[in-house]
Amino acid sequence: MTLLEVVSLRPTYHQYAYTFGGRRPLVTVRPGTIVELSTEDCFGGNVKGFDDLPSAVCEFPYLNPVTGPIAVEGAEVGDTLAVHFVDISPARDWGISSTFPHFGALTATHTTAMLHAPLEERVWVYDLDVEAGVCRFRARKSDFSVELPLDPMHGTVGVAPAGGETLMSITPGPHGGNMDTPEMRAGTTAYFGVNVAGGMLSIGDGHARQGEGEVCGTAVEAAMRTVIVVDLIKGGAPVSPRLENDAYLMTTGSARPLEDAYRISQRDLVDWTASLLDLDLLDAYQLVSQAGLAPAANVCDTNYTMVAKLPKATLGRQRAYEGRHDHLRAVAGAYLRER
Amino acid sequence: MTLLEVVSLRPTYHQYAYTFGGRRPLVTVRPGTIVELSTEDCFGGNVKGFDDLPSAVCEFPYLNPVTGPIAVEGAEVGDTLAVHFVDISPARDWGISSTFPHFGALTATHTTAMLHAPLEERVWVYDLDVEAGVCRFRARKSDFSVELPLDPMHGTVGVAPAGGETLMSITPGPHGGNMDTPEMRAGTTAYFGVNVAGGMLSIGDGHARQGEGEVCGTAVEAAMRTVIVVDLIKGGAPVSPRLENDAYLMTTGSARPLEDAYRISQRDLVDWTASLLDLDLLDAYQLVSQAGLAPAANVCDTNYTMVAKLPKATLGRQRAYEGRHDHLRAVAGAYLRER
Amino acid sequence: MTLLEVVSLRPTYHQYAYTFGGRRPLVTVRPGTIVELSTEDCFGGNVKGFDDLPSAVCEFPYLNPVTGPIAVEGAEVGDTLAVHFVDISPARDWGISSTFPHFGALTATHTTAMLHAPLEERVWVYDLDVEAGVCRFRARKSDFSVELPLDPMHGTVGVAPAGGETLMSITPGPHGGNMDTPEMRAGTTAYFGVNVAGGMLSIGDGHARQGEGEVCGTAVEAAMRTVIVVDLIKGGAPVSPRLENDAYLMTTGSARPLEDAYRISQRDLVDWTASLLDLDLLDAYQLVSQAGLAPAANVCDTNYTMVAKLPKATLGRQRAYEGRHDHLRAVAGAYLRER
Amino acid sequence: MTLLEVVSLRPTYHQYAYTFGGRRPLVTVRPGTIVELSTEDCFGGNVKGFDDLPSAVCEFPYLNPVTGPIAVEGAEVGDTLAVHFVDISPARDWGISSTFPHFGALTATHTTAMLHAPLEERVWVYDLDVEAGVCRFRARKSDFSVELPLDPMHGTVGVAPAGGETLMSITPGPHGGNMDTPEMRAGTTAYFGVNVAGGMLSIGDGHARQGEGEVCGTAVEAAMRTVIVVDLIKGGAPVSPRLENDAYLMTTGSARPLEDAYRISQRDLVDWTASLLDLDLLDAYQLVSQAGLAPAANVCDTNYTMVAKLPKATLGRQRAYEGRHDHLRAVAGAYLRER
Repeated sequence: MTLLEVVSLRPTYHQYAYTFGGRRPLVTVRPGTIVELSTEDCFGGNVKGFDDLPSAVCEFPYLNPVTGPIAVEGAEVGDTLAVHFVDISPARDWGISSTFPHFGALTATHTTAMLHAPLEERVWVYDLDVEAGVCRFRARKSDFSVELPLDPMHGTVGVAPAGGETLMSITPGPHGGNMDTPEMRAGTTAYFGVNVAGGMLSIGDGHARQGEGEVCGTAVEAAMRTVIVVDLIKGGAPVSPRLENDAYLMTTGSARPLEDAYRISQRDLVDWTASLLDLDLLDAYQLVSQAGLAPAANVCDTNYTMVAKLPKATLGRQRAYEGRHDHLRAVAGAYLRER
Repeated sequence: MTLLEVVSLRPTYHQYAYTFGGRRPLVTVRPGTIVELSTEDCFGGNVKGFDDLPSAVCEFPYLNPVTGPIAVEGAEVGDTLAVHFVDISPARDWGISSTFPHFGALTATHTTAMLHAPLEERVWVYDLDVEAGVCRFRARKSDFSVELPLDPMHGTVGVAPAGGETLMSITPGPHGGNMDTPEMRAGTTAYFGVNVAGGMLSIGDGHARQGEGEVCGTAVEAAMRTVIVVDLIKGGAPVSPRLENDAYLMTTGSARPLEDAYRISQRDLVDWTASLLDLDLLDAYQLVSQAGLAPAANVCDTNYTMVAKLPKATLGRQRAYEGRHDHLRAVAGAYLRER
Repeated sequence: MTLLEVVSLRPTYHQYAYTFGGRRPLVTVRPGTIVELSTEDCFGGNVKGFDDLPSAVCEFPYLNPVTGPIAVEGAEVGDTLAVHFVDISPARDWGISSTFPHFGALTATHTTAMLHAPLEERVWVYDLDVEAGVCRFRARKSDFSVELPLDPMHGTVGVAPAGGETLMSITPGPHGGNMDTPEMRAGTTAYFGVNVAGGMLSIGDGHARQGEGEVCGTAVEAAMRTVIVVDLIKGGAPVSPRLENDAYLMTTGSARPLEDAYRISQRDLVDWTASLLDLDLLDAYQLVSQAGLAPAANVCDTNYTMVAKLPKATLGRQRAYEGRHDHLRAVAGAYLRER
Repeated sequence: MTLLEVVSLRPTYHQYAYTFGGRRPLVTVRPGTIVELSTEDCFGGNVKGFDDLPSAVCEFPYLNPVTGPIAVEGAEVGDTLAVHFVDISPARDWGISSTFPHFGALTATHTTAMLHAPLEERVWVYDLDVEAGVCRFRARKSDFSVELPLDPMHGTVGVAPAGGETLMSITPGPHGGNMDTPEMRAGTTAYFGVNVAGGMLSIGDGHARQGEGEVCGTAVEAAMRTVIVVDLIKGGAPVSPRLENDAYLMTTGSARPLEDAYRISQRDLVDWTASLLDLDLLDAYQLVSQAGLAPAANVCDTNYTMVAKLPKATLGRQRAYEGRHDHLRAVAGAYLRER
C-alpha cells in the first residue's frame, strides 16, 4: 500500500456527457488508480432557487450531466470494473429538489400516459451542513422544517452499454446508469460488466440524500466532490451491476414493470450466492428467500431499479471477487490517511 | 393499566378459516382485549419432512389457514382496528419452507403463464431455537448450513373485505390478508379499515423469519403462539393497512404490477404525513421522497405488496392516532410483566 | 330439434346480484335450456341524463348488477358450462356512457395511485336505433355527432369462483365476470369452468357497443333483453373462459399487468390448439404465433383482460368440444324461427 | 403525377445496420422519392434450415439487420416523415421462424428473469407461395400442415432516436424501431417524428406474416423486396409512430408494462381525434372509447407495442395530415402502373 496513483478529473461545463456510450474518454487510468472527480447536479447547476423551474432553465437532452468516461487500461469485453467509493462530499452548502412535469411515481408520465394536467412544478432548497451531517427540509406552503441525516451518494454510475448502444444518462440498465439507489454511497464497491474496451466509466447525479424509490422523481440533488478507486477484475462480468459494502452483497435489476427489476436482482443474487457457497441453485434460491432484503432504488426513471441484499454473515468466510472489496477498503483507508 | 381482559383463542383443526369474509366470528371481544391465540402454518401442519411435498399433502383451497374471525364490539364500517402484536413465538422447534409448482417470483405461474415445466418441488426443514434466537438453514444438495436470526412474524393478518367479497386467505389487498411483510412482528401495531360490523380480524401464516419479497413463495413457515391486543379507533379507516412500530410509520400497498403496490403505499404515506404535519400535499410528497424507505413485502402472491416507511423522527412530537401505538405498547408491557 | 325448453328470468330490482359467488340461484335449468332474461345497465338504471353523475346516483357496492345466478342441473366441479348467445337487444332507445372519478385507463386510479385530482366526471347519452343498427355519439362540448354501428354485447358473464370466493361483479378473472370483451355478442358461445355445483351463471353489463380496451372505463351502457342457451359439457373445464363463434376460437386471460392477461390467453390458446390438432406444444406455440389475433378486451377494470383468437380455418375439420358450438347455433336458429 | 423519382437501395452484407441512430446515411433522397429497397431477414439470412439454430449461427449484436439510414432532404427536428409502403414482396420462396433461448412471451427471459432452463430452440421452415398468396406451416413433431394467408409486412421501421441515443434495432420506442405490428403492410402510411436532421429512416425485419403479439418471439421471417415512398411533412411530429391505411387511423405505443404501451397509443389516438374533429379532450376520449380497436403488436421485444385504431368513417370528411395518405396512395398507384 505504498504508492497510490491519484488522478484528478474536473470537467469544464462543456466536457460533461449526457449519455453512456458513444463518447471518447476524458481520461485513461491504470487499474487501481484513485480518481478525484467533480460532478454537477442533475439540473446542470441551473436550478439555484425557487424561481428556477427545471422545465424552464434546463434544456432536453442536456439533463443529468455525468463526469467521464474514464477508460480503464486493459479492460476488455467480459471483464468487470470495480469502482470503490472512497468519499462523496457535497460541493456546495445547498441542494435542490423539485417536481417536474409528468415525471415521478405519483404522476402521469409520458409512458404512463394519461389525460391529467401536470402536477405543480415546485422547487425545494435544502441547506446542507456537512459538519453536522444533516440537510434541512423546509416546506414551501407552511413553516414546517426538519433536519434529515446527510447521506451522500451518486444516482448515476455506469459504463458504456453493450450492443453498440448509446443511452441517455437518465436511463438505468444492465450497464448501470441512473439506478438511483442510496446504496451507492462511500464505503461501497460497485461492479460493472465491461461491454466495450476500456469500460468507459461515468459518474454523476449526486444526492445529499434520497428516499428509496425516489418517489417524486428527484432527490436532494447536489454537485459533489467524489473520490473513487477504479479497479479491474479480469472476466466475471455480472449481468447487471453488483454492489458490496462491509455488511452486504447487493445485486440490482433495472427494468419495467417493477417486478421484473426485482426478478433480475433476485435471480442474480441467487446465482451469486450459489457460486460463492457452491450451492445447488434451488438451495441458493431458498437461502436468499429467507435471508435477503429487497429495497426499491428508483420507481420513477425510464427503467425502475430494485436492489437485492444478502448479509455477508450468511457467507461465512467466503469472499466475493477474492476479497476485492476488502482490498479497496484498505486502499481507500490509505488514501484518506495520506490526504 | 389495572385490569387486562385476556381471551384465549385456540381453534381446532376444523375451526380454521381459509378466507377473509363470509365467516361468523369465533369470538367477540371488547376493544382493548388481549387475545392469546394459536395459528397453524400455511401448510395446515401437513408438511413435516422432506417427503411431504406440499402439492401432495395439501388440498386446494385448504391452504393458509387463519385463526378467526375475531369480532370487535362497536366496530362499524369506516372505523379502524388497531392490532398490536405483543408476542409471536414458534409453537414447535422446527419450521418448513418449500418450492411449490408454479408459485414464486422466479418461476412461471398460473398468472405469469409460460410453457416451462415447474421447477422441482423441494422441502427444507429448519431447526428453530427460540432461546438462542436463531433458525438453521440446511442445504439439501450439499453440506452447507448456516444460522439465521429468528424474527417471528405473521404473513397473513386482515379483516373482512369491502363490497361483500369473500377472498381466499392467500390474497393480500386493502383488507390486509396475505401481505407477507416481515414488519408484522412483535412490537408492531397494525391498523385496518373496518368494512363490515365487527371488523372480523383473522391471523395466520406465521414465519420464523422471511426475506423481503418472499422470492421462492414461502418463508420459514411455522405454527405460532401469538399474543395481540385488539383495539378500536372510531373512524379514520385507512385505504390500505398501516403499521407502526417505535421507529417508523408504515403504509402498505397490495396490487399488480409491483409499481402499483409501491404507488398505493407511497400515496398513503404522503397523505398520512401531510395530515400529521399539516403539510400541503406536494410538501409531504417532497418530504417522503427524501426521508422514506421502500422495502418489498411479497412479490409472489396473487397481489404483490410493498411497504413505505417514514422514520418517526421526521414527525417531531406528532403522534399518529393520538399515540395509540404508545398506549398499546404500554398495555403489552403490563401484560408481559404479569404473565 | 323438436321441443325447446324456454325459461324466462326477469329479476326485480331487489333480485339483482352484485357478486359472483355467495348467492342462491334465482332459477335452476336443465342443460340445453333457452333462457330469456333481462339485464339492467351497469349503473343500475340510475343514470338517465347529463346531470345524473354516477358517483352521485350510484352507491358502492351496488354497481354493475347481474342477472342470476342460474344453476345448471348436473353441473359439477370440473365440468364446463357452454353459454350460447342467441340474441342481445337493447331494452331502451338510449344508452349511457360516462367518465367516473379515478376509473379508466387514462386516469390515476385507486390502484395506479397518484396525486392528480380526478378528471371531470361527464355523462354522454347515446340514441340507440335497433332498426337502423346504429347508435349516435354526441359531443358534449361541441356540435359534433356521429353514428356508430350498434354491436350489442355483455361485459359481464361468469360463474361462481373457485376457492369459496365471492367476488364483486366488476372483477374479471378465471371465473369470467367483468371481462368486457366485444366478442361476447350474439352468435358466440362462451365456455366456463364449473367451480361449484350448478355452476351459477350470471349475466349483466350490456353494451350497445364497446371499443377494445374500454379505455374511458365505460361502454355504451344499456339494459338488455337477452336470449341464451345454457348447456353443459361434462369435464373439460378451461383455466379461463373460452369463446367460439363461427370464425374463431378464442381464449381469455384476466390479470395485471396486461402482459400477464396476454400470457394466460395465449398459453391457453396454445394448449387448446395442441389438443385439437394433436400437436406437440412447441408446434402449437409456433402456429398460434403466426395465425393468432390478440385484441384487448378491457384495460380499465380491477383485472385487465386480453383475448387470443385463432381462425377456425386453421383447424381443418377439427371441432372444439365435439361441435357443441354448431349444435347451439342450430338450437338458436330453431328458437329464432319459432319466436 | 408525371415524373416519379425512383431510387434503389440494395445494401451489401456489410452495409446493414443494427442500430437506429449513430449511423451515416446510405442514401439521401428528396421528399416524394420512391425507394426500391431490399432487406435481409432478422437472422441475417444465416438460418436456412432446421439445423441452423439461431443461437449458434447468429452473433449478438448482429441481429435484425436494417436497411438504411435513408436521409430525407429538408427533414428537421420536429418534422414528420411519411413513409408509404407501396409493395412488400418476399425475396425467397421460404421463410423461417424459431424459438430462441429466453426470448418470447411464454418463456422466462433475461428481463422476466427466472430459474427455468430455456425452452427447446427449434426452427420451422415455411414455404412461401406469392402467386397463391399463402405460406405453409409444417409441424416439426407430427405430420400436420396448414396453409396460412401470406400477409407481408415489416417488423422494424424507424428513425434515429432523440436525445443523442443509439438503440439496437430490436428495440421499439418513440422512434419506431422493432414495433412488430402486422399493420405495417403495403397500403399503409407510417408517420415518424424527426429527431435529427434528415430523419434517418431504416427498414428491416420482413415478415411473410405475423400473429398479433408475436408470441413465440419471431414471425415468418423473410428477406424482402420492398418499395416505399418517402415523404416529408413540416412540423407535426407525433409522440410515437402513427399509421394510416384506407380504413383506419392508427397510433402506437411501445413500453413496458403492456398497459403503458396501451396508454401511450390510446392517449395519442385521443389527441389525434380531438385535433381532427376539433373536439374537447374528454369528448374525444369518449369517442375513442366506443369506436376504437386495440390489437397487440408485439409482447416479446425489449419494449412491448400496442396499436390503437379508429375507423376513418368516424371522421366524416376530415383527413389526417391534409390527405397525405391519399396522395401517397395515388403516387403508389402511378408507380405500380408504370412498373
